[in-house]
Parts: sequence; structure tokens; C-alpha cells
Amino acid sequence: MKRVVKVVGKKYEELNVEKAIQLAIDYQLFSEHSELSCTEIGDGNLNYVFRITDINTDESIIIKQALPYAKVVGESWPLTLKRAKIEAEALKEHGKYVPKIVPKVLGTDTSLAITILEDLSHLTVAREGLINGENYPKLAADIGEYLAKTLFYTSDFALHPFDKKKLVVQFSNPELCKITEDLVFTDPFFDSETNNIEPELQSIVEALWANKKTKLEVAKLKRTFLTKADALLHGDLHTGSIFVSQKETKVFDPEFAFYGPIGFDIGQFIANLIMQVLTREREQRELLTLQIEQTWLAFTTTFSELWKKDSVDNYSYIEDYEVEVLREVLSDTLGFAGCEIIRRVIGLAQVKDLESIQDSEKRIKIKKQALEIGELLILNRLKFGSIHSVTNLVRGAVE
Amino acid sequence: MKRVVKVVGKKYEELNVEKAIQLAIDYQLFSEHSELSCTEIGDGNLNYVFRITDINTDESIIIKQALPYAKVVGESWPLTLKRAKIEAEALKEHGKYVPKIVPKVLGTDTSLAITILEDLSHLTVAREGLINGENYPKLAADIGEYLAKTLFYTSDFALHPFDKKKLVVQFSNPELCKITEDLVFTDPFFDSETNNIEPELQSIVEALWANKKTKLEVAKLKRTFLTKADALLHGDLHTGSIFVSQKETKVFDPEFAFYGPIGFDIGQFIANLIMQVLTREREQRELLTLQIEQTWLAFTTTFSELWKKDSVDNYSYIEDYEVEVLREVLSDTLGFAGCEIIRRVIGLAQVKDLESIQDSEKRIKIKKQALEIGELLILNRLKFGSIHSVTNLVRGAVE
Repeated sequence: MKRVVKVVGKKYEELNVEKAIQLAIDYQLFSEHSELSCTEIGDGNLNYVFRITDINTDESIIIKQALPYAKVVGESWPLTLKRAKIEAEALKEHGKYVPKIVPKVLGTDTSLAITILEDLSHLTVAREGLINGENYPKLAADIGEYLAKTLFYTSDFALHPFDKKKLVVQFSNPELCKITEDLVFTDPFFDSETNNIEPELQSIVEALWANKKTKLEVAKLKRTFLTKADALLHGDLHTGSIFVSQKETKVFDPEFAFYGPIGFDIGQFIANLIMQVLTREREQRELLTLQIEQTWLAFTTTFSELWKKDSVDNYSYIEDYEVEVLREVLSDTLGFAGCEIIRRVIGLAQVKDLESIQDSEKRIKIKKQALEIGELLILNRLKFGSIHSVTNLVRGAVE
Repeated sequence: MKRVVKVVGKKYEELNVEKAIQLAIDYQLFSEHSELSCTEIGDGNLNYVFRITDINTDESIIIKQALPYAKVVGESWPLTLKRAKIEAEALKEHGKYVPKIVPKVLGTDTSLAITILEDLSHLTVAREGLINGENYPKLAADIGEYLAKTLFYTSDFALHPFDKKKLVVQFSNPELCKITEDLVFTDPFFDSETNNIEPELQSIVEALWANKKTKLEVAKLKRTFLTKADALLHGDLHTGSIFVSQKETKVFDPEFAFYGPIGFDIGQFIANLIMQVLTREREQRELLTLQIEQTWLAFTTTFSELWKKDSVDNYSYIEDYEVEVLREVLSDTLGFAGCEIIRRVIGLAQVKDLESIQDSEKRIKIKKQALEIGELLILNRLKFGSIHSVTNLVRGAVE
């Protein structure tokens, strides 16, 4: 019944629920006599998300439309519509390697900047579930596998250089990268207007800004983000980009996809787990801390299997090479995780995990812990020998 | 009289001297009643180079045409004609920053894969001049300045990220990069058919192939070449790509241009100077060894000036940042120089500096010195604190 459609030629206009339903009819996404209902369920800042359901069969699909501006700051921050294309193509590219973890793209319309997707409304956004105290036993292993497969198979380790360089061009994504360059790597480390700093944190943050050692390391991490075209990243892999249940994990929203350093996706995910760990009560804390370890373990185990099985690199037989690549990925991961944590505490786009804590004393305490961990990850990223020394740092911070 | 022309729409055909003259007439490159003569002066493997002269005025221009195959292995190695476009655009891009060192592009014809250039036949190819024992007092300072300006101004240190990422796409150059990936970073380090190894070197080369430490470091250097999109490189900056006189320096042939690691161009140039040093008699040796130091000094001095003057990087005010960037560039430079030296001794494309030595005992001795220096540069590239420890290694090797 659902068809894979690709339509071009229409002029861009913002959809509403009526237009979204009409589109579903025009595109024959449902059978002829379906009765359709539609709700806009987007909670992001950059897109509309329409859920269209056949009232009689309960079958449903998602139409996601990129908006030409960022809602968070009104219409004044224009944003390329090309990101809808990037997102659909990244889903398809990553879907080749981990179909069970990547939502299916049912169709695209470049001129309307829409992507038609399978409906995953039966799942929960990981951030929401985790805030509500849920645990997802498959999350770490699934994300570890997702990371290993999407990153390995789009890298020079697995691709012919012609294919890889073609993808680098295809996924050139300057506007979305600029958001990360500014909001993750620059603004939080300077007294920028975009920051949002609670008064109780002001003195700590000013000390951070004045610490030239930290800023030197952030400068290097930013340079790595700007120049190291390792693999096709998701580009925004926080827990708000992941749907989960006890049985399933789906990674969505890769509109920030581009060729960047392998450690960036891993670092963002781990950073968001760390922040969630900090908010939990003791008995719930360890379960999630273990998931940080399990993520890294699943990533490295799968990565190593793929390296042995599918590497096209003439040098892959040298054992120490893989060890050194993974060591470099770990230190990049931790540095990026540190930047992500800091920007989520004091930058423009903060996280509900921390913001929803009503008790202001507790919230400030946790934010201070987060800032401290973030800075330590940045400064000592080359010294952590294993993921366990990282999780022990987190354990120590909350005890 | 010379016009800037841009013609498209013709079908590709290989030129000869008659057709080149006709083209010069069609494009009105000379005044109406000129008497023109033409010679093919190319000695490369990938292109025709026609020199067209007005017999009466002695005014002349160059028409360079890319061939659809590499002559070195007959017509069996097809090569993209897009490289003519890349070359012309790289000359224009680099020419913005160092006009005195980059040949002027007078016109292009994409369909014929030709570039019309100012004639620099009054200059000598640096490799030839150096082999003949010449010294070029301005060479090191000019190339150092060329490297600093072309690399700095095309990097994220100087460009808005949108402009930089646009150039990354524009200069995507998979086919030419593949030649370097194979001939510089892979084939010489394996028992590959493309290698050309003198029997007396066989045992040394087999020891090189068996040295996992060296191969690990080459693997990492190759990965850096594949992934680190720092700046718009020349991509093939050996002494055969440089015209010189006592007064002038011009860098030509940037058909390998792409976004790569800053150290690559510097490393290739220095490697070719080192090989030339090894061939020289004692009294001539030091003059050229000093030019290696002067190149690095000119590069770093200019780079630092530009960093202070024109950096757009928010972090550029952190003093240690520039120091660390230049330290990283030095180690990359030395690693790449090591690979370049080794491939010029045992790989497919060797250099006349070494090949023209008739005395086979002397030639083998120098080739062994070169291989040893190459391997040391690769292995110890992180340990050299300054360019002087490199030149002292070279001095020590030949004493």
C-alpha cells in the first residue's frame, strides 16, 4: 500500500495538516478510499513533522518538512532547505549498513523539502524516556553497532577512494556544520550572546573562558571537526535523535550529516548519557553508567570485526594500526563529549535532562558537576586509557 | 594583444602544432598579421605543452592540453580531463595570494581540456638547474612564501567556513589523488608491480617492507593524506613543478590540487631538495642544505605574520595554538617527505637527480642514503624539534 515516491517540480510552500493530507492523497501513500487524519507532532525547531493516519486501518506515515528558518529564534535565522535532501540521503546511506536501526525513507520531494518516513510513533524519544527513569537494555548495544557500521562503511577503511570522495561532495553541508561550529565549539567558550548561563554558574564559566589550556584544546577539537573528513556522520547524535523501546532502537534526524571525524557522533551520544547519569538517583545511576561502557564496547567490537572482514586498506593487516585508530577515536570522542556537555549547560540549545530539574540547588549542583566533567574530558582526553577511566570519573563526580 | 579567453563547446580532440596555431588564431591570442611558430615542449607524461611564438615580435604563449591517458604506461591508463579545469582554477586561486609566483592563466577551454598560460620559457625547471649545479638564492624564500600564503589563505584559519567548504567541493580530485595514494603511500611499501628497484637495493627494500613500525607510520600518513582537508594544496610540488632563475620563481602544474594536509606540499618540496643535496659534492651541498632551512623559516615566518594579521579563527589569539599547529605541520611535513623520498628511489616515478648518476656505485650509495633518511623521517617525524635537526640528519648522512 505504501509506495516509494519521488516527486519534484513543485514550488516550496509551508505545509499545514490539510495540505499534508492532500499530499498523501496526491502521492497515493494510502489506498484509494482511506479516511485520513493528520497531526503536526514536531517539537524541534527546524521542521514540521506531520503524522498521517488511516483512521480505519491505523496505518500511518510521517511527512517531515524542513522550514526555511530556525523557529528557535523566529524567522530571522534562515536555514537551507537542502538539509531535507541531506537528511533523506543520509538515512538511505546509513540504512544500507544498519537497516534495523535507521528509519525507512518512503519518498522525498526536494522542492517541498519533504521526506516521507515510516511512522515510529510507537517508540519513545530516548531523552524523554530516560528522563522518566526508563532503562533501555538494547540502547547501548544498538547505538554501538550503528556507530561502528555507519562510520566504518562510509570511511576510507571500507570504500574505494572514488566512492568516498563522491560522498564527501554529496554531503557537503556548510550551513548545518556552521551551527555546530558556533554552538558547540565557539560560543560556549566565549562571552557570546547566544549563551544562556544561570547566575550561580557565572564565576565558574568565567574561569573556563579564562583557562587558556582548555581553550587551546577546544581550538584543536574545533579544527578536527572542521578538517577531518573520516566518515559520514549523523552529525547530531544526542538522545533526542533516537527513538527507543525495550526492543527497538531507531536513529533519526541526520540533517547535520557530513563527512567529519569518527569520534564526533560517539562523543555526542556519550555526553548526553553522562548528563542523564548525573541527574539520576544512586540506584538508577549505575545502570546507565554501564550503558556508556557498553556503547563503547559494542562500537569497538563491531568496528574490529568489520576491520578484519571488510577493510579495503592495504595496511589493515598491521595490528597496531587498528589499535592506534581506535585510540585516536577515543580521545577525539572524549574531547567532543566534553564540548557537547559544556554547550548543553551554558550554550543556546540546552537539554531537558538538566533544565527540568525544579530544585534549583540540585540543578546548579549537577550543572557544576557537568561543567567539571566536560572540562576534564577536554583537557585529559589523550590520557584516558579506556572507557572505564571515563565512567569512573563520572562515578566519582556524583559520589 | 594577449586576451583573456574562455571558450566552451568544442569537442575534445588531441592537438598538434598545426591545430595549436589555428587555435591561437581562432582565439585571437596574437595580433591579426602575426607569423606564428609552434613547438611541443612537454616532457611530462600527462599533457601536451605547445609554445606558440610570434616570429616577428618574439611574444609567446603556452597552450597546455591534458591528455585522456597517462603516456608513461601508454594509452591504457585513462585519466580524467577534468584535471585541466582543476589546474586552471588552482592557478587562479593560488594566484590571488602569490601573484608573483603563480603563472598567469590567459584562458581556458574546458571541452578541449586546455589552459592558455603566460610563457615562462625564459626560466629553467628547478630540477634541471639544480642537477646542473646551479643555485637559486631566491628559491627557498619564494617557495616558503608561496607555501605559507597559498596554504594559510585557503584554510579555515583565513576563510569563512562556507567559502572553504565550497572550495573543498570544487577541488574534489579523486583520480589524481588516487595516483598519489598509490604511488606515494602504497606501492613503494609493498612488493608492487609498479615499483622499479635496482637489484643492489632489493635486500634493503625487503627489510623496509618487513618493518611493521615503518608501515604503521606510513599507514597513518596515508590516512592523514586521505582525510585531513586543511588547505588547497598544489599536490605535486616537487622541483620539476617549479620554474626558476636568479630573480624569479614560478610554481606550475597544480593538476593534483585538492584539499589536503598542509604538510604535504612542504614535505614534497623538501624531499626533493634533500635528494638533490645527496647528489652534490661537499662544497655545493651546504648551500642547498641551507635552502631547506630557509624554506621552513620563510614558511613559518610568513605563516605567523598571516596568522596575526588575517586569521578569522576565534581561537587564533591563543599563542600556543599557532605553535602547536606549526609543530603538527612539521611532523606531517617530515613524514610526507620521507614517503616522497622512498617512492622516488624505488617507485614508478623516479627522479633524474638520482637516475642520471652514471657511476652505479655512487648512485646505489646515494639511493641507500636516501632510503635511510626517508625511513628515519617517517619513523621519527614527531621527535624532530626543528628543521635544523632534519638538516643535521642530512648533513650526517653524507659525511
